[in-house]
Amino acid sequence: MGEMNVIGKRMAMTDARAKVTGLGRYADDLSVPGMLYGRILHSPHPHARIRSVDTLAAEALEGVKAVATGRDAPTPYGILPIGHDERVLALDKARYIGDNVAAVAATSPEIAEEALRLIRVDYEPLPAWFDPLESMKAEENWIHEKRAHNIEKEYHHHFGNVDEGFAQADFVLEDRYYCGEVTHAAMEPHSTLAVWEPNERLTVYSSTQVPFYLHRTLSAVCEMPMSRIRVVKPLVGGGFGGKSEIIPLEVAASVLAKKARRPVKITYTREEVFYAHRGRPITIVDLKLGITKEGRITAAQARIVQDGGAYCGYGPVTVLYSGALLNALYDIPNVKFDGFRVLTNKPACGAMRGHGTVNARFAFESMLDQIAARAGLDPVELRRRNLLKAPCTTPNGLRVTSYGLPECIERVAERSGWAEKRGKLGKGRGIGFACSHYVSGAANPIIRSNMPHTTVNIKIDRDAGITVYSGASEIGQGSDTMHVQIVAEVLGVRPERVNLVAADTELTPVDLGSYSSRVTFMAGNACLNAARNMRAQILGPVARQFDCETDDLEMRDETIVSKNGAGVSMSFDDAVALAMVGEGALVAKGTYAPPEQARGGKFKGAGVGPSPSYSYSAQAVEVKVDRETGQVKVERVVAAHDCGRALNPLTVDGQVQGSVYMGMGQAVQEEMVWREGRLMNPSFLEYRLPTTLETPQIESIIVESIDPEGPFGAKEAGEGSLAAAIPAIANAIYDAVGVRITDVPITPERVLAALRAKEEAEKGGAR
Amino acid sequence: MGEMNVIGKRMAMTDARAKVTGLGRYADDLSVPGMLYGRILHSPHPHARIRSVDTLAAEALEGVKAVATGRDAPTPYGILPIGHDERVLALDKARYIGDNVAAVAATSPEIAEEALRLIRVDYEPLPAWFDPLESMKAEENWIHEKRAHNIEKEYHHHFGNVDEGFAQADFVLEDRYYCGEVTHAAMEPHSTLAVWEPNERLTVYSSTQVPFYLHRTLSAVCEMPMSRIRVVKPLVGGGFGGKSEIIPLEVAASVLAKKARRPVKITYTREEVFYAHRGRPITIVDLKLGITKEGRITAAQARIVQDGGAYCGYGPVTVLYSGALLNALYDIPNVKFDGFRVLTNKPACGAMRGHGTVNARFAFESMLDQIAARAGLDPVELRRRNLLKAPCTTPNGLRVTSYGLPECIERVAERSGWAEKRGKLGKGRGIGFACSHYVSGAANPIIRSNMPHTTVNIKIDRDAGITVYSGASEIGQGSDTMHVQIVAEVLGVRPERVNLVAADTELTPVDLGSYSSRVTFMAGNACLNAARNMRAQILGPVARQFDCETDDLEMRDETIVSKNGAGVSMSFDDAVALAMVGEGALVAKGTYAPPEQARGGKFKGAGVGPSPSYSYSAQAVEVKVDRETGQVKVERVVAAHDCGRALNPLTVDGQVQGSVYMGMGQAVQEEMVWREGRLMNPSFLEYRLPTTLETPQIESIIVESIDPEGPFGAKEAGEGSLAAAIPAIANAIYDAVGVRITDVPITPERVLAALRAKEEAEKGGAR
Repeated sequence: MGEMNVIGKRMAMTDARAKVTGLGRYADDLSVPGMLYGRILHSPHPHARIRSVDTLAAEALEGVKAVATGRDAPTPYGILPIGHDERVLALDKARYIGDNVAAVAATSPEIAEEALRLIRVDYEPLPAWFDPLESMKAEENWIHEKRAHNIEKEYHHHFGNVDEGFAQADFVLEDRYYCGEVTHAAMEPHSTLAVWEPNERLTVYSSTQVPFYLHRTLSAVCEMPMSRIRVVKPLVGGGFGGKSEIIPLEVAASVLAKKARRPVKITYTREEVFYAHRGRPITIVDLKLGITKEGRITAAQARIVQDGGAYCGYGPVTVLYSGALLNALYDIPNVKFDGFRVLTNKPACGAMRGHGTVNARFAFESMLDQIAARAGLDPVELRRRNLLKAPCTTPNGLRVTSYGLPECIERVAERSGWAEKRGKLGKGRGIGFACSHYVSGAANPIIRSNMPHTTVNIKIDRDAGITVYSGASEIGQGSDTMHVQIVAEVLGVRPERVNLVAADTELTPVDLGSYSSRVTFMAGNACLNAARNMRAQILGPVARQFDCETDDLEMRDETIVSKNGAGVSMSFDDAVALAMVGEGALVAKGTYAPPEQARGGKFKGAGVGPSPSYSYSAQAVEVKVDRETGQVKVERVVAAHDCGRALNPLTVDGQVQGSVYMGMGQAVQEEMVWREGRLMNPSFLEYRLPTTLETPQIESIIVESIDPEGPFGAKEAGEGSLAAAIPAIANAIYDAVGVRITDVPITPERVLAALRAKEEAEKGGAR
Repeated sequence: MGEMNVIGKRMAMTDARAKVTGLGRYADDLSVPGMLYGRILHSPHPHARIRSVDTLAAEALEGVKAVATGRDAPTPYGILPIGHDERVLALDKARYIGDNVAAVAATSPEIAEEALRLIRVDYEPLPAWFDPLESMKAEENWIHEKRAHNIEKEYHHHFGNVDEGFAQADFVLEDRYYCGEVTHAAMEPHSTLAVWEPNERLTVYSSTQVPFYLHRTLSAVCEMPMSRIRVVKPLVGGGFGGKSEIIPLEVAASVLAKKARRPVKITYTREEVFYAHRGRPITIVDLKLGITKEGRITAAQARIVQDGGAYCGYGPVTVLYSGALLNALYDIPNVKFDGFRVLTNKPACGAMRGHGTVNARFAFESMLDQIAARAGLDPVELRRRNLLKAPCTTPNGLRVTSYGLPECIERVAERSGWAEKRGKLGKGRGIGFACSHYVSGAANPIIRSNMPHTTVNIKIDRDAGITVYSGASEIGQGSDTMHVQIVAEVLGVRPERVNLVAADTELTPVDLGSYSSRVTFMAGNACLNAARNMRAQILGPVARQFDCETDDLEMRDETIVSKNGAGVSMSFDDAVALAMVGEGALVAKGTYAPPEQARGGKFKGAGVGPSPSYSYSAQAVEVKVDRETGQVKVERVVAAHDCGRALNPLTVDGQVQGSVYMGMGQAVQEEMVWREGRLMNPSFLEYRLPTTLETPQIESIIVESIDPEGPFGAKEAGEGSLAAAIPAIANAIYDAVGVRITDVPITPERVLAALRAKEEAEKGGAR
């Protein structure tokens, strides 16, 4: 590939100036003449039949321009084709406190609020289900009639033979792990501006990770052809999966705009954001692991129950990933997985950074330490002994094409001083270790088709400016900058020459969205293909003019030169002008779809299937535990991440640090606390994210395994580091104070309780 | 071509709803956070050396964010490569009252005005030139030192031999014709919003007909690469040529924005619009014509002097067109033309609807009637006897490929009742007849290159919406609708399925601009080629699936069907989905450049050259002349226009009516009145456009000659009808009251003077 000029360099994100100067415009910053303010009426009941909704008084209020109920938009939808169980506004039943019942658009937010108060809903409360383990035993009052016993989806996978595996083991351990519910807590609340255009089109500006899916859903629910709807993603202030489904306000604003024939903006309050969240579900993992005395894993068995809330959402994927991806990290010959996504009368959970893998990984990596202790093995050494022999295909059919995990482990062990520190940090201090991984997108799209997952177009005209059209959605992860870097590298120009137009369904070709860490891999590959196509169009005429082969030429420093110094030298501008003779504007296209052989995961129910490539992480965490208060302080994190190739090391570092931070929050303090379906802490004062004061230096180590399929070898970087942080902290607490906490968040109360139990046990043992 | 579904139908313009509902956004409607207000300081002197400009006090005023003078942007520019004689702000001299001397950007318009008052300019007044016939004799004090005797440009063409021609004539006439200066008077004043972007780019929203030339000029003057500048044309409220050059406010706003690093908007006052106008110059035509007694023209000789004002602008083209296009209407074997574009100390004139042809045509068509009277021929019959034998090439090399003039003449003669009415309408009433024509764009671009004149791209993705990217500039003439119609026709879909993205240098490929009536012909052809390319991409897979040839298929009514009823039937949406398998978004490109053989006009100095195709018009006008007041009332106009094919008859009718209206205004009432370089009537109260009360019913007759090169046979429709209106009115006045007025506007004063002179002459004759 030769020396590179843009790829691999630390480059400030292209939207950084706009963001730090305050000039960048997020959805709620947008405003158009005649704009109305929309508000949504939410159910006060966790489960209730809706007998009637009387909107007459609201409609009569001066300044109210539209009132909508379930009857205005009865088409059900959902992010997965198998889960169309939501309506923008409830038609028959409300299924959680906060469920959407009616919506109003008015000339001011105050009038809209007043109108909500005038809507009379006749509810018939129904018995409600809050505990997933109880809910899945339900014989009646099912939340969705079609979902017997409130089980949304169950998976039962068995690869190899776990009975034989456990029989071969010298040590077998069983335990239950509990993870509380957490949410994305993006700084930007959800916001949507739906503009009914004078030409009877609908333009929707929304804070979304998935403009394309939103486009489809709006078409269905608003009963308009997609060609008359345009979805535009402005700047997004954080997604983390929380904007990767269709959010009710997006549809409600559109329904109201169509009804009022006016622009309508809805921005959620922070409380509404908490209820709309679709975060990581309460997860109960019953795990059983067997190893030989040499430390080889012989079998793993997991039963995982997830508390999905009232609607399907991404739920089947959440539970599928928690089972299917157990295998892609280590070499495990026998695996059994039983997964249940259970409905309850709470807001739906869904995709959150590390989607599906995080809580299962907490259990697995905790138990690895537990069983290492039992076997008298160093936890890092235990992990070393169970590495895959990549490239390989796992027993459940996952294709591992690049595998930087061994290097991640060694570099973290070295940098963290693992050997010197484990068990030796002194009173109340400890070090823990864990690994994790993630997909680089799903090899199969949610909605099956034989179309590419991404198309990228490039236009160059007489200004020799390069306009790149991509449907990919920048959500803060660096998607926009990634496109600019790839094109600048391939065409040998400064990044400033590249203008990116992104995530606008009218202007750009489709990309499936920013979820499952698919963008760099898939949109990046499409962009690379488009840039190479454009490169050929420019080099061809230059080669003809100089009577050489295009292979003899290279593009760098805004110039076309001979590779071998044979004398060709032409500025990029002149080369473009030459290529345009008789041709007009240059247009190039690139597409990407994962290769056929990446799509064939053997596990059943592969709604989204495996990935074309996996990232790998290892982390060491040092903690200090206050034995008096139970407070855990994370003091240092060393995190290595194999991202294939770091296209922009600056953003890879940022993603690793952000992932670790988010894992740390879940590990020690974040939790959505529910009481009878009502959220007890729906604000940032009460739902305690770690502040900078509680966040240690996070040392990021980039490992580059150069994936054969990734663009320039790149693969996932934005999610994979999260999952290791939680078990690494739990393992560090064990190293610090000798207690094994199996429930997260590891609150001071839980630490104190465990310390007391340990003391009791030790007293008992001493007695 | 078969039956058509969209082309040839009367279709409301795609922006009509936005315009009539008030939701459409023109440049001055735009506003961005932090926007400053720019104002320009104008010279009070018609000709003065600038000794110094002191801006210190202005800069010190609170709220002033930038002050610019000529030193901030010294690069000269101009629309023609041969005429780069302007600077955005004067550096050495002011050359007309209103010349731009300094500019200010401030937080409010009031502060900006106050700052202008604080700028001290030390002027040294110089002798000034106001009369072109005097100015061209100047031996000193030349307005531009490089332009000796204040002659900007002169052309001397001679085809055939006029001396021999006049010798063969039975009747020879010589006369002088004078046309006052008129202006476009677009409803929308010029307005520009220049946004300095956080990423150090410049985005300029401007009311322009020529985004691409503006883009180039901004790059030169702001000293930034074109790739870092984006020009966007919002809705434009009328151009008529007045926005077809770079207007100083466009550059001044950009220079100020770059200096202040803030967005800056400048909107001209109506008075500033009048001074910035670049309208139709004072023109003095000395014409000599010879005909045989059978009515065959044997020779024509014209000496044309145009009062260009202080800068070059489009001036060389104005005078070139007035000579070169004398030939394309009738068969004239011998032609001599001497043209002078003369500089004076007044605002520069330039392109206005019918650019270059109008005043020369007034002279020619007036004289045809005069000489017909001398020879005792019917004026219509005289024109019939001098028709071209098309297809043909004129003596000066103009290629006439379609020629609907004969049909225009016959249909107007019939509809107007010419034979029954001429000379028989009774006291004070008369009927007049005249013809005109115009180019369908210039075959050579202003800035020579071998690149196409237009590229159009089309994208279709899974929504099966059709996004068309065109650089062409809608200025009210129907450019946008034309693109939508062509694509809808070729792809057999409803126009609502087509989304047009136009006139945005970042998003769309280059089109040279909306001038010389080039858009339908050139962008239309590029669009047609792109649509045909897209059609092939969609039909190919359908034909393969049904095992037939693409030629067997047609696209209509949103469906692909067999031409021969052989059973293929697939919806457009399904066909797109099929075509996208493995391909991703469909992308098609189309370009257009006039054919080589259209570019070879023989006349010298062909800065822009001839056209690939010409439109033709004939008009009959009935007037009533009040002998007491001299007031001329135009009572009826029958106007036939050969536009090749009327892609949208609704807009063709509108263009014909608008052209006739504008010609009528020039004919009887509009004139910019100057005194010592100062405009006496710089407002709509004083510069009297005809109102609806003064405008008669204009009966439009569309003649379709189906040009072999035009898109679906279409050619020019927006300008060609104008020129005939003025001589037709003059000829009608002659028919009504027997006086020949050779000066326009034909004001009541001129009519009364002519009537008195005629009475005097008749008295003299009687005496």
